[in-house]
Amino acid sequence: MRTGVWLVGARGSVATTSIVGALALRAGLTGPTGCVTELPELRGPALPSFADLVFGGHDVVDTPLPKRAEALAAAGVVPGRLVDALAGELAEVEAALRPAPAGGSAAEQVAAVAHDVSEFRRRHALDGVVVVNVSATEPAPEPHPAHDDLAALRAALAGPSEVLPPSSRYAYAAFTAGCPYVDFTPSTGARLPALAALARERGLPYAGHDGKTGETLVKSVLAPMFALRHLAVRSWSGVNLLGGGDGATLAEPAANAAKVASKQRVLGETLGYVPQGDTRIDHVAELGDFKTAWDLVTFAGFLGTGMRLEFTWHGCDSALAAPLVLDLARLTAAAHAAGRTGPLAELAFFFKDGIDAPTHALAEQWTLLREFVAGLHAGAAR
Amino acid sequence: MRTGVWLVGARGSVATTSIVGALALRAGLTGPTGCVTELPELRGPALPSFADLVFGGHDVVDTPLPKRAEALAAAGVVPGRLVDALAGELAEVEAALRPAPAGGSAAEQVAAVAHDVSEFRRRHALDGVVVVNVSATEPAPEPHPAHDDLAALRAALAGPSEVLPPSSRYAYAAFTAGCPYVDFTPSTGARLPALAALARERGLPYAGHDGKTGETLVKSVLAPMFALRHLAVRSWSGVNLLGGGDGATLAEPAANAAKVASKQRVLGETLGYVPQGDTRIDHVAELGDFKTAWDLVTFAGFLGTGMRLEFTWHGCDSALAAPLVLDLARLTAAAHAAGRTGPLAELAFFFKDGIDAPTHALAEQWTLLREFVAGLHAGAAR
Amino acid sequence: MRTGVWLVGARGSVATTSIVGALALRAGLTGPTGCVTELPELRGPALPSFADLVFGGHDVVDTPLPKRAEALAAAGVVPGRLVDALAGELAEVEAALRPAPAGGSAAEQVAAVAHDVSEFRRRHALDGVVVVNVSATEPAPEPHPAHDDLAALRAALAGPSEVLPPSSRYAYAAFTAGCPYVDFTPSTGARLPALAALARERGLPYAGHDGKTGETLVKSVLAPMFALRHLAVRSWSGVNLLGGGDGATLAEPAANAAKVASKQRVLGETLGYVPQGDTRIDHVAELGDFKTAWDLVTFAGFLGTGMRLEFTWHGCDSALAAPLVLDLARLTAAAHAAGRTGPLAELAFFFKDGIDAPTHALAEQWTLLREFVAGLHAGAAR
Amino acid sequence: MRTGVWLVGARGSVATTSIVGALALRAGLTGPTGCVTELPELRGPALPSFADLVFGGHDVVDTPLPKRAEALAAAGVVPGRLVDALAGELAEVEAALRPAPAGGSAAEQVAAVAHDVSEFRRRHALDGVVVVNVSATEPAPEPHPAHDDLAALRAALAGPSEVLPPSSRYAYAAFTAGCPYVDFTPSTGARLPALAALARERGLPYAGHDGKTGETLVKSVLAPMFALRHLAVRSWSGVNLLGGGDGATLAEPAANAAKVASKQRVLGETLGYVPQGDTRIDHVAELGDFKTAWDLVTFAGFLGTGMRLEFTWHGCDSALAAPLVLDLARLTAAAHAAGRTGPLAELAFFFKDGIDAPTHALAEQWTLLREFVAGLHAGAAR
Ligand SMILES: NC(=O)c1ccc[n+]([C@@H]2O[C@H](COP(=O)([O-])OP(=O)(O)OC[C@H]3O[C@@H](n4cnc5c(N)ncnc54)[C@H](O)[C@@H]3O)[C@@H](O)[C@H]2O)c1
Ligand SMILES: NC(=O)c1ccc[n+]([C@@H]2O[C@H](COP(=O)([O-])OP(=O)(O)OC[C@H]3O[C@@H](n4cnc5c(N)ncnc54)[C@H](O)[C@@H]3O)[C@@H](O)[C@H]2O)c1
Ligand SMILES: NC(=O)c1ccc[n+]([C@@H]2O[C@H](COP(=O)([O-])OP(=O)(O)OC[C@H]3O[C@@H](n4cnc5c(N)ncnc54)[C@H](O)[C@@H]3O)[C@@H](O)[C@H]2O)c1
Ligand SMILES: NC(=O)c1ccc[n+]([C@@H]2O[C@H](COP(=O)([O-])OP(=O)(O)OC[C@H]3O[C@@H](n4cnc5c(N)ncnc54)[C@H](O)[C@@H]3O)[C@@H](O)[C@H]2O)c1
Ligand code: NA
Ligand code: NA
Repeated sequence: MRTGVWLVGARGSVATTSIVGALALRAGLTGPTGCVTELPELRGPALPSFADLVFGGHDVVDTPLPKRAEALAAAGVVPGRLVDALAGELAEVEAALRPAPAGGSAAEQVAAVAHDVSEFRRRHALDGVVVVNVSATEPAPEPHPAHDDLAALRAALAGPSEVLPPSSRYAYAAFTAGCPYVDFTPSTGARLPALAALARERGLPYAGHDGKTGETLVKSVLAPMFALRHLAVRSWSGVNLLGGGDGATLAEPAANAAKVASKQRVLGETLGYVPQGDTRIDHVAELGDFKTAWDLVTFAGFLGTGMRLEFTWHGCDSALAAPLVLDLARLTAAAHAAGRTGPLAELAFFFKDGIDAPTHALAEQWTLLREFVAGLHAGAAR
Repeated sequence: MRTGVWLVGARGSVATTSIVGALALRAGLTGPTGCVTELPELRGPALPSFADLVFGGHDVVDTPLPKRAEALAAAGVVPGRLVDALAGELAEVEAALRPAPAGGSAAEQVAAVAHDVSEFRRRHALDGVVVVNVSATEPAPEPHPAHDDLAALRAALAGPSEVLPPSSRYAYAAFTAGCPYVDFTPSTGARLPALAALARERGLPYAGHDGKTGETLVKSVLAPMFALRHLAVRSWSGVNLLGGGDGATLAEPAANAAKVASKQRVLGETLGYVPQGDTRIDHVAELGDFKTAWDLVTFAGFLGTGMRLEFTWHGCDSALAAPLVLDLARLTAAAHAAGRTGPLAELAFFFKDGIDAPTHALAEQWTLLREFVAGLHAGAAR
Repeated sequence: MRTGVWLVGARGSVATTSIVGALALRAGLTGPTGCVTELPELRGPALPSFADLVFGGHDVVDTPLPKRAEALAAAGVVPGRLVDALAGELAEVEAALRPAPAGGSAAEQVAAVAHDVSEFRRRHALDGVVVVNVSATEPAPEPHPAHDDLAALRAALAGPSEVLPPSSRYAYAAFTAGCPYVDFTPSTGARLPALAALARERGLPYAGHDGKTGETLVKSVLAPMFALRHLAVRSWSGVNLLGGGDGATLAEPAANAAKVASKQRVLGETLGYVPQGDTRIDHVAELGDFKTAWDLVTFAGFLGTGMRLEFTWHGCDSALAAPLVLDLARLTAAAHAAGRTGPLAELAFFFKDGIDAPTHALAEQWTLLREFVAGLHAGAAR
Repeated sequence: MRTGVWLVGARGSVATTSIVGALALRAGLTGPTGCVTELPELRGPALPSFADLVFGGHDVVDTPLPKRAEALAAAGVVPGRLVDALAGELAEVEAALRPAPAGGSAAEQVAAVAHDVSEFRRRHALDGVVVVNVSATEPAPEPHPAHDDLAALRAALAGPSEVLPPSSRYAYAAFTAGCPYVDFTPSTGARLPALAALARERGLPYAGHDGKTGETLVKSVLAPMFALRHLAVRSWSGVNLLGGGDGATLAEPAANAAKVASKQRVLGETLGYVPQGDTRIDHVAELGDFKTAWDLVTFAGFLGTGMRLEFTWHGCDSALAAPLVLDLARLTAAAHAAGRTGPLAELAFFFKDGIDAPTHALAEQWTLLREFVAGLHAGAAR
């Protein structure tokens, strides 16, 4: 099953790390650490192999991919020896990247994106293409009546107004091109009734939102721990210090707000109440692609005795995100092949704010995921 | 179902906090924070209510219980107002405590314990008694052939040698008195083939070992997180600083070794490999009943990128342990009533080193516990 | 030397803790932990004894002082037994408190404050009174031309405009009543040219700003450590989580800004450059009078190797501030008695943002302080 | 002033980083971050320049220096580009290294060392050579009567017994060769009355012990902070996790004990009392040349209120130590040139356990150092 992975934000840190990693896996130069789909519990015939993945994508900048890869090597995100060894393969992927369409009406931009994706599928003779958004986080858009109605949306796209934010235009284009769409960012993406209708109409699955890679991952196991032990969380405060392109974007208050909301959701939904405290994101350029998050949890035990837990997470965001991007591409391609349509709630394991996620507890999300994948493999084996 | 809870180490911090808390719950002076059996998922008809619990126990020291409760109030472990309000009830429990038998052969000591427990059941007209070991941690005993054979053990007990450590003598006595036995400590307790045979012979359930209240609790959710995300844990080092009676005991190298082994088990069994690093326990008297644990985890992500997580846990051990002691007494009494015999592996949720524990991942242990309790309630409802 | 200590914000946490502590010291019920003036290096004849201190003050709220003291005892800030033992003495201080003047022109308010302070001095037959501002932090005022000129200020005060913020009105009143003024808060206080002129005119000393009790105290020793070792600090980020009255006030963006600026000053001035990173203050009511600050410092060593230091400070702000308030009152009274006028730069040891502070390194500030106090004692001994 | 730096343990991490760094500084390829002697307050004519330094040394292993440098580059301790650029210079230093003498009597070994050092001075026409011990930490030796008497020592050295540990044999040899000796390790070195007598006899200065680079450095500013604020430190516990050669050595209980003692000294001497708590050193190979230290300090403020500070230090030991080795070589050479003899107590700034250190507070040590260096420059300028 030759599977295209079309990355929106293809020259960003996450995208580049995903590409380098997939090429390195294909070449046998590295192991699948961090790839959930390579765990014995999930491995199986339904998923395209790493060798089956073909990369392309859009970006608004034009730094060549090999350059970005070298920069990531210098920053300690990917090993320099891999970038050197994969120079030829990276140049090939570079050739498959396209500038993000600019200018024209929204309808024209959408058409241009859909055209690029279809062209990619055709040229590489792919069985399918999954569009994955790993571009910079956007502010939430102004509400618009056309968000709720597909016909109205079609009409509005032709007009002059900015009815859809970029992430949603990409989702729209993916669906019109017959491709599933995954949103790894907290942006709007496919999360609008009109786009859900479009996916249904085309019989396509989609997934999102916001890859769960650091502080929220830890929260998704610690919050259930407090809940299962009947301990009363009184406050949960967090600060995230990050550099890199993502850090710079998130320093913008509007993008920051989108991200923070997606980060706190796990608490209220897991605990059944919202403890005091906020999560903050600060940009510290010097930290580069590494992020430091610090959280303080105060809680009460038996008879009201006050206690506390604090943790510091020092992670490389792109190295955590990239294998999940590959996992999501493989899983979504398999779900598409299996005829699944609509939101893939079973992929909540991967997201801070999974669409229709029935739970925010990581262990329960794992159970859902395992059963979902078992179903895919069972179908593939038939 | 009037249920006796016979505490070995009845004047210790955990025991005293358990008693104060149960009395306060009975009197409606506090809520069930920290009591797992009061979660909506576990609550139900099979469990004795807090008002049904009657306390007694053995200890080697004779500080009156109300004095110990006041000391715990001064240390911030239990609220002083509860101790004041419950003066009468505490004096009643004090009257039910017995000195730990000393002198005589092991057989005589065992008989004396069994007699005290039976007398307690009789005087209070109890439907059953659960013996719970919350006494000081012992060193592991020398291996002895009689550990493996009940007949040989019976013979050896009458002789002069120290064939069983105290915790196992209590287990033996509990079983001969027809009572289930729970070991909240890392001591040997019922964990010997000869004692397992005795429990089987008498048709009694038992559970253990070593209440999971702090660092290991956190490990039991973080280790699965790394495993489920296919991240490679390279080292996991921990230090536990604690004062209190338990801290003083654990400063003894032999007791320390027993505890540390029980703490590291979760890693190897959850991850499938043993990362570098040790866990240490140090006694710092000034910390009193509060414990500070610090853990550093280093791990590798995609392409080998190194990352780290550290956490500091600042907990009040007795306030964490006491509600679990009540939970275990209720659950074990219900299991006994339901005719369960042998090790209660489904209670692994409560232990660092659960007997026959099929998993060390907290969320899976929760699933087992929930199913187990549902079964008890279903039986009770019939 | 009977010395009055007139506290602005007399019913606040810092003020109440200062009063309880001084009364307890006078009664021999506690030791001088935290009182810098009781160190062997500073003790001596020039300073009024604790028994010589007489308390009064203004506040805008009217919760009785004994009530506030009980609340602080319940919160674990002061021992309940002290509050009980000092009930009579606290009631006496309560009788010396006055409502903060409200209504009328600024000139009338200033006159009312000065009258209350003078009346206090007279009634208690005091040798002198030091006015100490420990009231809630204000936003920085709008600049006004009268801030720079005493005559213009006198004229403006009589008019309708809000020319001076409250802290500066108290400073003005203190000076007109012949009293030195200490600002323990980051508010404007005496920090205006017109007020400096007034202090000079009356021959009075003053000191400030912003007591240095937590994160900034730690910074004032760690920043010099990096500087003396020629290590290059790349980023220094901090977050302060605090509840209490002060926490609620500082959650207001304007007050927050004043405080944060005063917190970061030490870095730029000690290192000679400003590293990346911000300091944040968040209000978490549940933390009460305890504050948790977390700081992350990233730095480069030899050949550019990147390293990091993080610290968590968990302090009780009022218990840290109160002894310094007593120190400042004693020192400023002695300086006044010794004829010192103008800003007391030698007291920089106590402040985040000392007026005319020649250094922000704690150890150098200590040297200045020691020499200053030695001078006072030498004068007193003559 | 052409100055030889003879490194004992010349192929170790600290030595190799020192050599790479000095060569890079000489070549203008890096800046002097971490070099205290390059601070404006210390710079001046008395000190040999980096270009004046010539390296040689002994080691018991024979891995070529360029290989060691490459390994350090791979571990992120030194930049790979520097190692590449300095290949020629490193090979030159390699040629000046000698195997540590083995076999023969102690007297013969000492003579061999002295000969190698003298030969090095002669061949490179050096004005002087400073011997710096950066070899692996030794256990403390058994006490021996000859340690107290130079004549007895001379006699004993010729005999069969192991009267001196290696570090002291190197010190003996350095003195007999007319060279000052610096001990950067916690080993015995020159710290014996008989060796002090020898240094006096030859008119030579010496310095030590145990470079202060991490946890103890932080302690040397935090402990004075608590002392100057009259706060009562109740416990101070620390754990040091380190890999690398040094970590492996320190995992040996005897070496560990020497190091730990040297680490705790600062507390007792600065605070005037010894708080509860221990410092531990654990070997975690995976941490490589980076060390993580975690310290918990509990302390009491006014009225006994309990508070706490914890810090995590994540440093690269060799990158912290190497510039100090260069500083010490420059300063000791200058002291020698200025005619100083005996222990250089003024260098306490650099050591955990400075010989005759009058204080353990970093800021006071800095003042001593500054005055000392000013004296050297004043002498040099004349
Ligand atoms: N790394 C993680 O752990 C993680 C976790 C969750 C979510 N995310 C999200 O993934 C996204 C990518 O993160 P990153 O670190 O790679 O950021 P980045 O800044 O390195 O990359 C983003 C890329 O998107 C491109 N881009 C911006 N607008 C675009 C548009 N309209 N069309 C096409 N390309 C566009 C940018 O030019 C850039 O190359 C962010 O939204 C981030 O919030 C990352
Ligand atoms: N508190 C927790 O979070 C926790 C968690 C897991 C396990 N535990 C275990 O629970 C036990 C109790 O802890 P604690 O903090 O209450 O300790 P503690 O020292 O306060 O109490 C132990 C009590 O046991 C008594 N005792 C000692 N030997 C005895 C004997 N032979 N017979 C009867 N009584 C005896 C002692 O006199 C003392 O009163 C310890 O073994 C501890 O390791 C506690
Ligand atoms: N506690 C510390 O460690 C610390 C350190 C540095 C500075 N400070 C400053 O000390 C001040 C007091 O802190 P706190 O914790 O006691 O706060 P708090 O809120 O408990 O007390 C402030 C008191 O000031 C009173 N007040 C407000 N406006 C007033 C006015 N115009 N006139 C008279 N009284 C007025 C309030 O009614 C309140 O009683 C704050 O400004 C704080 O920033 C405290
Ligand atoms: N790096 C720091 O921050 C720091 C701080 C204080 C003290 N120190 C001390 O510096 C020393 C060196 O540390 P490192 O990290 O370079 O260790 P390392 O293990 O990398 O190097 C030690 C070297 O000494 C050599 N050696 C051992 N015995 C010898 C002998 N008898 N004669 C000659 N050479 C011998 C070894 O072969 C090795 O090459 C250690 O004693 C350490 O405790 C280091
Ligand atoms: Na930390
Ligand atoms: Na911490």
